[in-house]
Amino acid sequence: MMQQAAIGLGVELRVLAQRPDDPAALVVPGTVIGDHHDLDALKSFAAGCDVLTFDHEHVPTDFLHELEASGVAVRPGAAALVYAQDKGLMRQKLSGLGLPCPEWALISCDDDLADFGATVGFPYVLKATRGGYDGRGVWMVDDLAAAKAVLAGAAERGVRLLAEAKVPFVRELSAQVARSPHGQAAAYPVVESLQIDGICREVYVPAPGLSEAAAVEAQRIALTVAKELGVTGMLAVELFETGDGALLVNELAMRPHNSGHWSMDGAVTGQFEQHLRAVLDLPLGQVKPVAPVVVMANVLGLDLPEVYPAYKHVMAHDPGVKVHMYGKAVKPGRKIGHVNVLGLPGRTLDDTVERARHAAAYLRGEIDE
Amino acid sequence: MMQQAAIGLGVELRVLAQRPDDPAALVVPGTVIGDHHDLDALKSFAAGCDVLTFDHEHVPTDFLHELEASGVAVRPGAAALVYAQDKGLMRQKLSGLGLPCPEWALISCDDDLADFGATVGFPYVLKATRGGYDGRGVWMVDDLAAAKAVLAGAAERGVRLLAEAKVPFVRELSAQVARSPHGQAAAYPVVESLQIDGICREVYVPAPGLSEAAAVEAQRIALTVAKELGVTGMLAVELFETGDGALLVNELAMRPHNSGHWSMDGAVTGQFEQHLRAVLDLPLGQVKPVAPVVVMANVLGLDLPEVYPAYKHVMAHDPGVKVHMYGKAVKPGRKIGHVNVLGLPGRTLDDTVERARHAAAYLRGEIDE
Repeated sequence: MMQQAAIGLGVELRVLAQRPDDPAALVVPGTVIGDHHDLDALKSFAAGCDVLTFDHEHVPTDFLHELEASGVAVRPGAAALVYAQDKGLMRQKLSGLGLPCPEWALISCDDDLADFGATVGFPYVLKATRGGYDGRGVWMVDDLAAAKAVLAGAAERGVRLLAEAKVPFVRELSAQVARSPHGQAAAYPVVESLQIDGICREVYVPAPGLSEAAAVEAQRIALTVAKELGVTGMLAVELFETGDGALLVNELAMRPHNSGHWSMDGAVTGQFEQHLRAVLDLPLGQVKPVAPVVVMANVLGLDLPEVYPAYKHVMAHDPGVKVHMYGKAVKPGRKIGHVNVLGLPGRTLDDTVERARHAAAYLRGEIDE
Repeated sequence: MMQQAAIGLGVELRVLAQRPDDPAALVVPGTVIGDHHDLDALKSFAAGCDVLTFDHEHVPTDFLHELEASGVAVRPGAAALVYAQDKGLMRQKLSGLGLPCPEWALISCDDDLADFGATVGFPYVLKATRGGYDGRGVWMVDDLAAAKAVLAGAAERGVRLLAEAKVPFVRELSAQVARSPHGQAAAYPVVESLQIDGICREVYVPAPGLSEAAAVEAQRIALTVAKELGVTGMLAVELFETGDGALLVNELAMRPHNSGHWSMDGAVTGQFEQHLRAVLDLPLGQVKPVAPVVVMANVLGLDLPEVYPAYKHVMAHDPGVKVHMYGKAVKPGRKIGHVNVLGLPGRTLDDTVERARHAAAYLRGEIDE
């Protein structure tokens, strides 16, 4: 999807991909196949680039520092990206900035688990500080015994744990901002995301019924994070909204994010173009939606070996649905694409949600009518 | 630009390009370098494709017939595309269908030139039946001597001529439709194009002040052409509007067309996506604009060797401008990109035109403030 934006801007995108059948490798000429855990591969790749950026957080932090030391323009830089890589560091930093977080503690031993349980009660949440994704690396523990079992398993694999209070949230929000090296920032409308089993399923734009004050607060949090952590490029701050309307930071992502895919069709400047503009230190684009409501629904792989035949039905059923498929092999639960729907003036949000949900369900083979 | 649409649809685009630095070759992996005047190159390229389509009209008609005879799905097919390749055949066909054309005659000898002058008067227009583009292959002749000189020059180069009356038009319009092999069609809003020296400079969407009746008539003409000529994919019918509101067909293009670039940002379904959907026989997408007015301005190469530095000014000046650059080397007069601007509700068309015109002029180096 970054390639679509790069083509428009006339910017040459080069990609380091792990495998020749990675989606990016299929659409970007001259993709280099290599491992982002290999410093030499990273250095050799970066040598041909004006700016190095990412579509995931998994390049080792030390390597990012080495690349920067050797003169590579890494955006976001290692000093910022580490907070998207390490949830423990992220909690320390955000709490230090006075930004609202769930109660949390770093866990080193069984006593830490018991202490945290005494403070917030059970159940609570344990998270791997690094490497979790889409619900992986997260455990809800009902009692101390369960917590100890998770810690033992984590210790065996060399995984460090963070404990967080279970937040009685009513919904999840996402506040996305872009920030450039010269310090310009732009805040997208705050959106609501529907998560099931830790995986984003749908996004509603703007977050329905969110008060102006809460929206401004969410954007303030995201802009503060971007500035104080020195983020360049797109930043997504995932937030919990609690019953009393309070906001708590859940996760950070420093790249185009699933919660911003709506902007590809629904905003004047899509998040991939904005990310490129930000990391290239070009002025940022307008973030205004082009429709009163926009809905994004993820297409998760189910058991259709091939989604293309479903296009005929989905496109005929609703010519307004924007289909984005990623060229990934279909695997159960894998995000293989998404659809965006722009709401029609005078129609309800429900109508727009129904359109997006139907298209995504049909594309994944969940329904056949 | 087709690659941007192909990525979204998850369709693998393969390109046959003349040179490794052709814009498409820069952004599409595995581009085959070859000559579209070479039947073997065409056949070998087509062997790996489900559907063969075009971004220009210059593949020899005979070769298209041979490809079809060998089982290649050529869309638009040779029987349709020939009318976009040969202006003489186009005039015969459209007049046969009763569609409004300027007065015209095929020219074989000096007597034909004199006869046509006696019928419509001087000045009139001579056109090469094949190969003209952006004002090339078009001559306005003031008298018989000038006409004879053009004919003599054309005969030397083996170029056949068509004569057309000079139309006292007040503006040029373009009616774009998409049509698929199974016969579905969709008509985009009729637009006005501003041409200078035979080159499109700006497009206004929808055509300002066009009556509902005239818009419907323009769409009817385009839909009739698409159906009766058996077009698949995008079709642009360029029209003259005369002082009394009559419409006359000027040119046909059977591909995404400059007059439709506005749709990339300004319509639910952009013309490149629509072309792919049409030639792949997928259901067509919604053609509704996403803003009350949309303006496209071409960026013509002037004397800036490198346009990228101008981005900072243009993007900072107006964050709502959508920049599309083609990765072409800058040559005077060459179309090297375009900008789209979505009009803001409550603002005038003039305001939107001014925004697009400023950005395009700055990008081409015509202004520096």
